[in-house]
Amino acid sequence: MQSPHSCVFCAETIQDSLFAESAHSRAIYNLSPILPGHCLIIPKLHYQSLLELKAEEFEDFMHFARRVTEGLYHIFQADGFNWTLQDGASAGQTVFHVHLHLIPRYLGDFPDPGDWYPVWAKHEEEILDSRLRPKLSTKEMRAIVQKLKKEF
Amino acid sequence: MQSPHSCVFCAETIQDSLFAESAHSRAIYNLSPILPGHCLIIPKLHYQSLLELKAEEFEDFMHFARRVTEGLYHIFQADGFNWTLQDGASAGQTVFHVHLHLIPRYLGDFPDPGDWYPVWAKHEEEILDSRLRPKLSTKEMRAIVQKLKKEF
Repeated sequence: MQSPHSCVFCAETIQDSLFAESAHSRAIYNLSPILPGHCLIIPKLHYQSLLELKAEEFEDFMHFARRVTEGLYHIFQADGFNWTLQDGASAGQTVFHVHLHLIPRYLGDFPDPGDWYPVWAKHEEEILDSRLRPKLSTKEMRAIVQKLKKEF
Repeated sequence: MQSPHSCVFCAETIQDSLFAESAHSRAIYNLSPILPGHCLIIPKLHYQSLLELKAEEFEDFMHFARRVTEGLYHIFQADGFNWTLQDGASAGQTVFHVHLHLIPRYLGDFPDPGDWYPVWAKHEEEILDSRLRPKLSTKEMRAIVQKLKKEF
């Protein structure tokens, strides 16, 4: 189990990818997006499971996720989205701070709509080996975060 | 686009797999579960997208999803869960009535935690061909729904 002290989503460096926040939640751009607009919604506090959030925090988290999804539609001309959440090691959670993946979609982005998953899963595996994982450069991340900040 | 008249989640037959409901939402057991406990949360009204739900309906939907997840933990001795939602044809939505897949997980249920997706995707493909799709029998569905109804 990770403590807040070693958690990447609690670290100061999260500021680089942060583009919007609500009372209890943050939206961060994915360091290794599988499609343009792929981001994460996280609670500000270090909870491992979605089941641990207080009712008010949970409501804020879900409303915020939907609001961010709507915003991404405009920016990325999306016409669909995937939400996916892995909660617990048995479910494939690798960073033990609640995070909902939010992936805006548009027709033809992948040969088959379901193709997002193997790409996403490969990135998740590579999270433990930063040499393998394709990552945005600091410059690329700064550009996308600036663009998103204007929308939210 | 499907109308409520031809929607499987609006049909009377949904009663066979319904095991819990809230003010605006229903929990139904999946006809073709990839793991024990695999179910769906749907709004009572026929919305295609999660973005269309009114704030009150959306809150009810998400709170209910979390409550059902907690209930499934007890019944299926889960220690994790996946939530996945495909919204729009581009995202792989096949039944055009909002539905959140809720899959309770436990360590070792699949050789790799990520293996749920290819199995799930295969089932989703087969939804259009009922001869191919592995399905619960009426008897099996009745037994699981009765068990779940006691919990909720």
